[in-house]
Amino acid sequence: MKESLWNSILSVRKNAPLVHNITNYVVMNTTANALLAIGASPIMAHAHSEVQDMVALSGVLVINIGTLDEYWVKSMLLAAAKAHELDKPWVLDPVGAGATAYRDGVIAQLLEYKPTVIRGNASEIMALAKVSQSKTKGVDSTHESQEAIEAAQWLNANVGSVVCVSGAVDVIVSGNRKIFVSNGHKLMQQVTGLGCTATAMIGAFIAAENDIFKATAAAMALLGITGQLAQKISQGPGSLQLHLLDKLYSITQEEFYSHIAIDEHHE
Amino acid sequence: MKESLWNSILSVRKNAPLVHNITNYVVMNTTANALLAIGASPIMAHAHSEVQDMVALSGVLVINIGTLDEYWVKSMLLAAAKAHELDKPWVLDPVGAGATAYRDGVIAQLLEYKPTVIRGNASEIMALAKVSQSKTKGVDSTHESQEAIEAAQWLNANVGSVVCVSGAVDVIVSGNRKIFVSNGHKLMQQVTGLGCTATAMIGAFIAAENDIFKATAAAMALLGITGQLAQKISQGPGSLQLHLLDKLYSITQEEFYSHIAIDEHHE
Amino acid sequence: MKESLWNSILSVRKNAPLVHNITNYVVMNTTANALLAIGASPIMAHAHSEVQDMVALSGVLVINIGTLDEYWVKSMLLAAAKAHELDKPWVLDPVGAGATAYRDGVIAQLLEYKPTVIRGNASEIMALAKVSQSKTKGVDSTHESQEAIEAAQWLNANVGSVVCVSGAVDVIVSGNRKIFVSNGHKLMQQVTGLGCTATAMIGAFIAAENDIFKATAAAMALLGITGQLAQKISQGPGSLQLHLLDKLYSITQEEFYSHIAIDEHHE
Repeated sequence: MKESLWNSILSVRKNAPLVHNITNYVVMNTTANALLAIGASPIMAHAHSEVQDMVALSGVLVINIGTLDEYWVKSMLLAAAKAHELDKPWVLDPVGAGATAYRDGVIAQLLEYKPTVIRGNASEIMALAKVSQSKTKGVDSTHESQEAIEAAQWLNANVGSVVCVSGAVDVIVSGNRKIFVSNGHKLMQQVTGLGCTATAMIGAFIAAENDIFKATAAAMALLGITGQLAQKISQGPGSLQLHLLDKLYSITQEEFYSHIAIDEHHE
Repeated sequence: MKESLWNSILSVRKNAPLVHNITNYVVMNTTANALLAIGASPIMAHAHSEVQDMVALSGVLVINIGTLDEYWVKSMLLAAAKAHELDKPWVLDPVGAGATAYRDGVIAQLLEYKPTVIRGNASEIMALAKVSQSKTKGVDSTHESQEAIEAAQWLNANVGSVVCVSGAVDVIVSGNRKIFVSNGHKLMQQVTGLGCTATAMIGAFIAAENDIFKATAAAMALLGITGQLAQKISQGPGSLQLHLLDKLYSITQEEFYSHIAIDEHHE
Repeated sequence: MKESLWNSILSVRKNAPLVHNITNYVVMNTTANALLAIGASPIMAHAHSEVQDMVALSGVLVINIGTLDEYWVKSMLLAAAKAHELDKPWVLDPVGAGATAYRDGVIAQLLEYKPTVIRGNASEIMALAKVSQSKTKGVDSTHESQEAIEAAQWLNANVGSVVCVSGAVDVIVSGNRKIFVSNGHKLMQQVTGLGCTATAMIGAFIAAENDIFKATAAAMALLGITGQLAQKISQGPGSLQLHLLDKLYSITQEEFYSHIAIDEHHE
């Protein structure tokens, strides 16, 4: 698969998919900028009066529950229902899953609409699968992603979603396939919302590439590699965010393949 | 006119107009920073309980419908009504016009309050004028701005607003006058919300300068020129956003006039 | 006290306090990034259905009323009530106090829950204390902070909060103690939301350090010093924001103590 991941990147640049985001306030700006940098076309819209029309216009839907409230939850449910009805791909980012009963209830409702891909950190994925009673500490990862593989496999089997557990090593699970992406740098954790950026990028990739598993791997590898390249020329998290956007825009095939670190497993 | 545009810039710096923004979530931070960089004083406020008081306190109102919902639409209508009543200048940015019936209905209501200036891309301006049935693709421009001149003239004649159609060449229309601003760089399209920044800057300029047509041209020229200057020292959209803010703050009269590319037409 | 301020910084890095922010749309991203840069763990949550659960999970609550509306005000009141009930520390940033009757009414309600710390500019602190009838001009400071000391002392005596009046010189008041922090650079005023960043940083510090007065001084000194260090290598407000985040992350004890400018007074 590794050899064809660059084609997925080119496919996003060529097709400029319209990515409809219902996401949190903290990351709206950086999400839009990351999508533009990779060649996608972001739209943010959540009004009950138009959210289903926007789903119909767009190539993919991305739902991120970070700063949810009752109004936004209804927007998310309306949008997910429409995507499900139209058989449009959609991605769920269950930010803070396990932190409050309210979040978990909302996630349960959203899972009814069968997200195409779910991306979260290990704590969040385990909260989704109820594999663990672990308490999410805010929105940071407190478990190693490998420990959440079992939860991801359970979700994949029971909801049908490709599941991406992000962490020091990202793990993507689909059926009897697993892929490990070891790109990225720990300084990326000091920049808010790069997980949310990953989710939105997965959205762009699955809108432009039919193979969902491969598209998810390409998105995660691209973000991880650009993070590594950016970190090398950064003095801290402020400059990392800036160089990351520059690199998402300018990365070449040679840079991509000289840094990629992925491993695929079949069981 | 060209010779006096720098005076408009100085007027903003000197008067530090209070610019009341009811704008979208994606661009609130970058809009506030751009306004501060040019010497204006931004305020963001939308509560029904205070929005009309804020209009009364401010020098200008800027309404951007990007992430509208039913609550925010009421805020916008309350604010536009107050600005109209008090004869305060106000600017409309009809983001995504034509994308959904809801947006178009909201825009129709806002137009009743006669915006002083309207700024949009070609698709949006044509959607406003119903000159075209063109489908807006998200918030990006899909038509060349020159093609929308007829729509802009129709809006100017029927609503009374100075209309700015932004694109590779920006066109500003008022009565039998047209001005073409050829500044800017295509990399600016990869940074989210620079159109929204343009709209907010027009707000600051019309608060500080009585000639609305000239103020609009000065704002568009300033943003375009700073974009060009910033692009020269940028490696991508991340650094462009940063250098743009720096240049909005530090640009000199000499830099401004050595790059300006405007053409004025009388019919 | 000066000698032990660095310990407060280390305490934040070591304890990584979970800081629950109910803040304004303009600054959510930069607030989260500043908190991450100093080693804290930010969470933004405001839904009525979970906001009290989040207060219970977090180490501190930060309320910033910048873009308040009726829904968010209820969130703030629910959260402040819970913090008060649980005896958790909380910080109030009364953005725009005095600008509208609505804001002042909301602030009066919030003060009932006895914020641990209040941070505002001179106009805002005077509006809170009703010492002055001065009209707030948007969210910028129009009074010198020293003039607001009397207002801060009145608030401290009547509400019980440690009060920080920020300006060219920050003044922190508690009982018969006053501390003056002369760090910072005027270019910081051209970056939106650095006052809000200060408030959130105070939150992180009081969650990690028992001495509230000292924690507040440490937060203000840290932000001011990093602003000075950042300004030296910046070309304007865009690069200042970036370098500030980098420096918050990387500042050393030696850099901190070679720039600190504080004065403590006992009456």
